[in-house]
Amino acid sequence: MFIIGELINGMYKNVREAIAKKDESVIMNLAKEQENSGASALDVNCGPLSKVPVEDMKWLVLTIQKASKLPLAIDSTKPEVIRQALEITKNKAIINSTSADEERLEIYVDMALKYNASLIALTMDKKGVPQDKDARLELAAGIVAFAQAKNFDINNLYLDPIVLPVNVAQPQLKLLLEVLHEFKIISEPAPKTIVGLSNVSQGTCQRSIINRVFLTMAAAHGLDAAIADPLDKDLMDAVITAELLLNKNIYCDSFLTAYRKK
Amino acid sequence: MFIIGELINGMYKNVREAIAKKDESVIMNLAKEQENSGASALDVNCGPLSKVPVEDMKWLVLTIQKASKLPLAIDSTKPEVIRQALEITKNKAIINSTSADEERLEIYVDMALKYNASLIALTMDKKGVPQDKDARLELAAGIVAFAQAKNFDINNLYLDPIVLPVNVAQPQLKLLLEVLHEFKIISEPAPKTIVGLSNVSQGTCQRSIINRVFLTMAAAHGLDAAIADPLDKDLMDAVITAELLLNKNIYCDSFLTAYRKK
Repeated sequence: MFIIGELINGMYKNVREAIAKKDESVIMNLAKEQENSGASALDVNCGPLSKVPVEDMKWLVLTIQKASKLPLAIDSTKPEVIRQALEITKNKAIINSTSADEERLEIYVDMALKYNASLIALTMDKKGVPQDKDARLELAAGIVAFAQAKNFDINNLYLDPIVLPVNVAQPQLKLLLEVLHEFKIISEPAPKTIVGLSNVSQGTCQRSIINRVFLTMAAAHGLDAAIADPLDKDLMDAVITAELLLNKNIYCDSFLTAYRKK
Repeated sequence: MFIIGELINGMYKNVREAIAKKDESVIMNLAKEQENSGASALDVNCGPLSKVPVEDMKWLVLTIQKASKLPLAIDSTKPEVIRQALEITKNKAIINSTSADEERLEIYVDMALKYNASLIALTMDKKGVPQDKDARLELAAGIVAFAQAKNFDINNLYLDPIVLPVNVAQPQLKLLLEVLHEFKIISEPAPKTIVGLSNVSQGTCQRSIINRVFLTMAAAHGLDAAIADPLDKDLMDAVITAELLLNKNIYCDSFLTAYRKK
């Protein structure tokens, strides 16, 4: 499982304050801690409150790159923020994210091609998040077709079916698990699948167990990647065990430590 | 998830000793503890070392029935042990188990009909446990066809794909998850699916996490029932959370306690 560490995000107070004070050590430590806990990549988001998002995002990227060589998921709703961050990203880059709207796909697929970045695409459009499986699948097929037409390598495309919180959209989650399979048969090679995991437990009182049980079930349905908290040891242990049971790593008695990516 | 508590089994020393001393309190406590921890039924097995299995099994059944009204899974390889136990079982009964061999099906389907019992059927035969999905499916289809021909209610049939330990048959587990879906489309109404969970972690150093991650993944693949240890609180919490995410119980903040069967 490709875990993108979610902790460098300006919605968290420690990150917001580090950005304000240009305190590199906080950000570098967050990068290192997540890498040491098994993250395969790091999300980078300056947060919705940033007044100068281009400047803040560039500072975050430069700071993280002093501490880690992991791929960076440049996370913003603003194309210009992402573009300017990609200009200075030396690590492998992931664009987080485009929607299925054609005008956004046009911008982001071109950008991903130009900067040799992977691309996360949400199966939603201007009308919002679809309520059923078929509508998500239709948007997914549209995204893949668009990317193929641009000769974008589908191996570098991550489809995100959009996980909603269990306490507000409970019936959707079973459909999401099913749609993870169906995304894989849209094309050959198949697109990768990703979820923004923590959203599933937003607003609940039992966040950690909800996160890890949902991630385990999604792993059983072929999920490739998740944006999640790699410092949640129980979560990472569950992922490692799921991958063992799915025969992705060979069994050994010490598998929990042996397969923690370092 | 229908959890059949596995702890009343003569392969455990405390049970073996209780049988030898006819110490009812040990057995009654095991029955109550498992029921209070969320078991939906109780497995009853006098163990492979019993010299007088009919007598031991009957004593276990009579003793458990003093403590619990849960269904009893009468667990033996000997038809006569099961038959005599069913004679005195007042709780709902489950026969554990038949294989796919026709001569065993003949005995056990008739017995299940006579005693109004459910029936667990292992998808294995004299040749052993099949190594691939198709062979398991073929045996499953044969079991269902046999039961249908006898007018046995398929709602009361539990197909067990036979879980093997991850440290000896690791590649099989992913196939088992897939076959759980396929068992469900053999007939209408569909047979139920069951696993002997603890087998997956037999001989490993991390039994609890392997058990609960595999059960979570199997739940995500529609598993109906498991023979497992209901006193493993982490396991039961994982099952309850999985069922919540699969929309089987309505979300509430206290779901972990609210949906613990008591």
